[in-house]
Amino acid sequence: MAGNSYGTLYKVTTFGESHGEALGGIIDGCPSGIELDLDAIEVEMSRRKPGQSAIVTQRKEPDAVQFLSGIFEGKTTGTPIGFIIPNTNQKSDDYSHIKDNYRPSHADYVYDQKYGFRDYRGGGRSSARETASRVVAGAIAKQMLPEIKINAYVSSVGPIHLDTPYQDLDFSKIESNPVRCPDEKSAAVMEEYIRDIRKQGDTVGGVVSCVIQNVPVGLGEPVFDKLHAELGKAMLSINAVKGFEYGSGFSGSEMKGSEHNDLYNPDGTTKTNLSGGIQGGISNGMDIYFRVAFKPVATIMQTQDSLDNKGNITPMTGKGRHDPCVVPRAVPIVEAMAAIVLADFYLINKTY
Amino acid sequence: MAGNSYGTLYKVTTFGESHGEALGGIIDGCPSGIELDLDAIEVEMSRRKPGQSAIVTQRKEPDAVQFLSGIFEGKTTGTPIGFIIPNTNQKSDDYSHIKDNYRPSHADYVYDQKYGFRDYRGGGRSSARETASRVVAGAIAKQMLPEIKINAYVSSVGPIHLDTPYQDLDFSKIESNPVRCPDEKSAAVMEEYIRDIRKQGDTVGGVVSCVIQNVPVGLGEPVFDKLHAELGKAMLSINAVKGFEYGSGFSGSEMKGSEHNDLYNPDGTTKTNLSGGIQGGISNGMDIYFRVAFKPVATIMQTQDSLDNKGNITPMTGKGRHDPCVVPRAVPIVEAMAAIVLADFYLINKTY
Amino acid sequence: MAGNSYGTLYKVTTFGESHGEALGGIIDGCPSGIELDLDAIEVEMSRRKPGQSAIVTQRKEPDAVQFLSGIFEGKTTGTPIGFIIPNTNQKSDDYSHIKDNYRPSHADYVYDQKYGFRDYRGGGRSSARETASRVVAGAIAKQMLPEIKINAYVSSVGPIHLDTPYQDLDFSKIESNPVRCPDEKSAAVMEEYIRDIRKQGDTVGGVVSCVIQNVPVGLGEPVFDKLHAELGKAMLSINAVKGFEYGSGFSGSEMKGSEHNDLYNPDGTTKTNLSGGIQGGISNGMDIYFRVAFKPVATIMQTQDSLDNKGNITPMTGKGRHDPCVVPRAVPIVEAMAAIVLADFYLINKTY
Amino acid sequence: MAGNSYGTLYKVTTFGESHGEALGGIIDGCPSGIELDLDAIEVEMSRRKPGQSAIVTQRKEPDAVQFLSGIFEGKTTGTPIGFIIPNTNQKSDDYSHIKDNYRPSHADYVYDQKYGFRDYRGGGRSSARETASRVVAGAIAKQMLPEIKINAYVSSVGPIHLDTPYQDLDFSKIESNPVRCPDEKSAAVMEEYIRDIRKQGDTVGGVVSCVIQNVPVGLGEPVFDKLHAELGKAMLSINAVKGFEYGSGFSGSEMKGSEHNDLYNPDGTTKTNLSGGIQGGISNGMDIYFRVAFKPVATIMQTQDSLDNKGNITPMTGKGRHDPCVVPRAVPIVEAMAAIVLADFYLINKTY
Repeated sequence: MAGNSYGTLYKVTTFGESHGEALGGIIDGCPSGIELDLDAIEVEMSRRKPGQSAIVTQRKEPDAVQFLSGIFEGKTTGTPIGFIIPNTNQKSDDYSHIKDNYRPSHADYVYDQKYGFRDYRGGGRSSARETASRVVAGAIAKQMLPEIKINAYVSSVGPIHLDTPYQDLDFSKIESNPVRCPDEKSAAVMEEYIRDIRKQGDTVGGVVSCVIQNVPVGLGEPVFDKLHAELGKAMLSINAVKGFEYGSGFSGSEMKGSEHNDLYNPDGTTKTNLSGGIQGGISNGMDIYFRVAFKPVATIMQTQDSLDNKGNITPMTGKGRHDPCVVPRAVPIVEAMAAIVLADFYLINKTY
Repeated sequence: MAGNSYGTLYKVTTFGESHGEALGGIIDGCPSGIELDLDAIEVEMSRRKPGQSAIVTQRKEPDAVQFLSGIFEGKTTGTPIGFIIPNTNQKSDDYSHIKDNYRPSHADYVYDQKYGFRDYRGGGRSSARETASRVVAGAIAKQMLPEIKINAYVSSVGPIHLDTPYQDLDFSKIESNPVRCPDEKSAAVMEEYIRDIRKQGDTVGGVVSCVIQNVPVGLGEPVFDKLHAELGKAMLSINAVKGFEYGSGFSGSEMKGSEHNDLYNPDGTTKTNLSGGIQGGISNGMDIYFRVAFKPVATIMQTQDSLDNKGNITPMTGKGRHDPCVVPRAVPIVEAMAAIVLADFYLINKTY
Repeated sequence: MAGNSYGTLYKVTTFGESHGEALGGIIDGCPSGIELDLDAIEVEMSRRKPGQSAIVTQRKEPDAVQFLSGIFEGKTTGTPIGFIIPNTNQKSDDYSHIKDNYRPSHADYVYDQKYGFRDYRGGGRSSARETASRVVAGAIAKQMLPEIKINAYVSSVGPIHLDTPYQDLDFSKIESNPVRCPDEKSAAVMEEYIRDIRKQGDTVGGVVSCVIQNVPVGLGEPVFDKLHAELGKAMLSINAVKGFEYGSGFSGSEMKGSEHNDLYNPDGTTKTNLSGGIQGGISNGMDIYFRVAFKPVATIMQTQDSLDNKGNITPMTGKGRHDPCVVPRAVPIVEAMAAIVLADFYLINKTY
Repeated sequence: MAGNSYGTLYKVTTFGESHGEALGGIIDGCPSGIELDLDAIEVEMSRRKPGQSAIVTQRKEPDAVQFLSGIFEGKTTGTPIGFIIPNTNQKSDDYSHIKDNYRPSHADYVYDQKYGFRDYRGGGRSSARETASRVVAGAIAKQMLPEIKINAYVSSVGPIHLDTPYQDLDFSKIESNPVRCPDEKSAAVMEEYIRDIRKQGDTVGGVVSCVIQNVPVGLGEPVFDKLHAELGKAMLSINAVKGFEYGSGFSGSEMKGSEHNDLYNPDGTTKTNLSGGIQGGISNGMDIYFRVAFKPVATIMQTQDSLDNKGNITPMTGKGRHDPCVVPRAVPIVEAMAAIVLADFYLINKTY
């Protein structure tokens, strides 16, 4: 119980179900005196929301954030920032068919087992709509740390991979296509693949890569709260995430030490960066980069067997909105969580 | 600062440098009345310690744990369990050559930058010797949860992979070879590979897989403290870990929803288990399984350039103990961290 | 930073300034399945709000709570309960006179020093209006623990003390008078005293006593999180509180051990209860009782010197609402914080 | 469970029973580069230990601290400081008479009820011997904050009160007498009173006052982690403490606002200091002062009824060491906890 907070000094607590009255959260510990750019927050919100392009079903979901406290005369006051995001579209009849049914690979079953019952409208608390609150908290964290650049992008969709090293990519192109892949040719192939998946009424997973630049040396708290351990936890806490790797990652496990060691330049930077900007759990000033694997979302438009709460197997066909690939929408969420982790460490490590 | 604790109700705090007087820790929150099998704890300790076979340099490192509190008449009392592991072999002259030098891909540089100076003997706090305290805490967590079975094993060494599904492996064979790979043929190839790496004075990484059985439904605290997010953080906090994936992991990102969804049996179990025993961040009663990627350790017996604290690049050759592949030794550490995570959730979730 | 949360498993986080758009909070960790009596929550809210009787200035402050999440079909779902309390009356011009002025014994000065600037309307975050959110969280905690009876009452107003032992009081009379003193004669004297203070344009402090019955043996976590230490922190965190004592309290410091020791009955209860229901930081099953001292609130209707932010001393006369004695209104806040502390320990201690 | 840690960034975790092998603790978060004066730590330890003068039973209890980590070449390294204090005198036969007996107003009964059994030697974990670890952590906190002066002293013993305002006391005389009262005449009366109590085989309580000077403006984290709320919790967590008040305290509850308000000087200091150096939960730069009430310790040399674990009432006479008044020994413990609280807030509030 009580797992809805993240952070120690930049502490984010969220609430809200997909079809309740509102989602929202509290950001406690944001320093005072930050002039908030509310438009920039709305931009992040619109990046996250569904229905942005032809590759997904259109849905109007105006994620207007209402700030209720902690901001005065346009600046943060140092007191907790409370905010809500009303759920304007709460047609619960859409979801009556899952009241007594557990959809495969959703959280319906475990919620019922753990809590005795659940808000069965949409995914309830387990819906990815919850991440809207994270995006708000991340957008403010980004504004708290303007010197740090966080660039996430889609590096694979299903079997289609962008293998170009991030150093050779132009991050300014990430938002130029609906897939959020900075390589236009790969983006086109991915988009075509998603269209095909959509026609099949199916879904597909993918990978979001993230590069963080201009991080100072010294962030991270060994031995348990290593920088990459917190980044990993933050990413794994996002819906549908199945894996996290940083620097050389899983491929580093195949290498020899003589190949993997990053040799120094005289100024303390390194010639290579297989370490991914983190050594011993502490940022070393080099670019931090990591990859986050997303499974295909479970809601498909095909018919699959589900389980009802009386133990019967019954076929079910997905209804409503169809998101064939949520990975592009996950890009701002990955950035938000990265910003939250950094804001927290930034506050902790500037200490004394 | 203050990143040396893990857990909320089963809280483990550790201390100690590789060449200080002792390592140790405090386990706070262990329930009372557990009859501790001290021999079983020593077995875990001996699994972790170096020098266990021909594939690594022999070193006598008697990791004798001394319990100082929290145990009375053989049973836990519910009060904090304090323990120390003396460092009997503190020859600091072995390490004088790194006093002013930063070894590539070690934490030497970041520690000096973050803290102003460091205990330069061995890795100091960043040494993997720190994990000895985790093994103690994990061994007690295992005894607290005797019904849960945690089986970790080496599934890859460098480029050599064991691809057999875990269901087809005989876990009783894990300890039958020094590589801790339950498939004897793969183990032999891995061992041969490590011997070769050793001759080269090099090191190699690998992957530890872990399977946890008999976990009840309901462990995990969305939305931030999801079970797999905490497992991920715990694993990523182990020295040299570069990646974590559970269930279908990164390969799941290539799949379609229609392939990936785990269909139910009438009893709530699932026909497949690509979810890895966790849905929506909550255990669903199926086997939990995950993979942990380890980079090759940075200390090699070859000559490589290092940086001194005056900005000069100077060649350095590794001295002392040579661990060509620490992955087999990481097996009990992975198990220990898994046990700690489960003990914490077990206490949290039995609540009310 | 980030001091706006209380609790570990029943975790309450609040936000909101007195003249912002709304106050509110998140209750994370409330167990599922509790049928909430929303009317009972409103009763607690109305007990806290100002303007309840002739002894205070009337003000309409409809503290209508809006629950936004965590409740479905009338029951708690186990997910975080988000709620807001709109500030319907935000006439900020009332407070323009204190924009650049620091009122004596208010938090104006320290907030400006700590945060660089402040929301100067009303007390901002330091206003006692913040406690409305605590009352919501406490009202739900009370419903979570229906077996536990929490009775707070006013035991002194300025120099007028009710010295009757709580065992001889009729708690059902607490709400029968505006002072919330269960002894009618004392209540009348206190009320008269407050009317006189009001005429003077002055304020006065007082003491709230609290008795908690039916607490099981075993709540409390030595050595730092002793039950009375958490109760003390919770009470001291309420605005205007200057002291806390439990059981024999300060008067116990004058006693001898032979007088103070509580001798046992054969069933484990004690003949006396100078321990106040807590021994060694753990509840012993006897009534828990404690006293909380409140200073007179700083806003008086007389003219006093204030400091402006340029270092000038300038006379200032209080304006607006005049609360000559907030102690009766503090009664439900004391109860709320006691309920929150107990709910948290109840969850922690049922563990395993 | 898991209540044996205090602090967020300066985090102290302790372990140890009175008659176990050793007590000890871990200080996590102490900044690096502090040149530790180990002699000064021993001085604090010797101030706490029993048997310092004719007014208490002599006992040899050499509280030699052994530091095991976190210190290198005489300076803190920023890594956790582990330490132990061996219990050299573990004659457990002294305590066999309480194995099955619950002494009145001790924690014996509640520990047995909560944990099922207990380490019955001495007070086990509930013994005040536990505070030795706090004194170590506090002594280091003091060295971390050399500019802050913490002066605690005994201001009452039983019915004998020192009512002189602290401003008129000479703190340099605190250690000049065994009672630790800076007023020599009062000290003499108190000492005589304690001698008399000792002859009676009885014990007596008292009050420790504490004054903290040179605290910067801005420490404290409203609304829950107010500076005085944390100080209160820290003090209430010390064995035998029954009450805490700061500034005007309980007597402030009898005052009018017009008397109680602290008027400003042009420099932001105040003419009076009934606020006790804290306004709105945040330090205002004035002296912080508070009072801590201690009950008489329960172990008396007279015969009193106890309860055995079969429900029989049996007379028991105290044996072993007799501490007629522990209040003088509590002085360094109060200082230690104050230093720990300040160190934590100092780290938290210098943030960003």
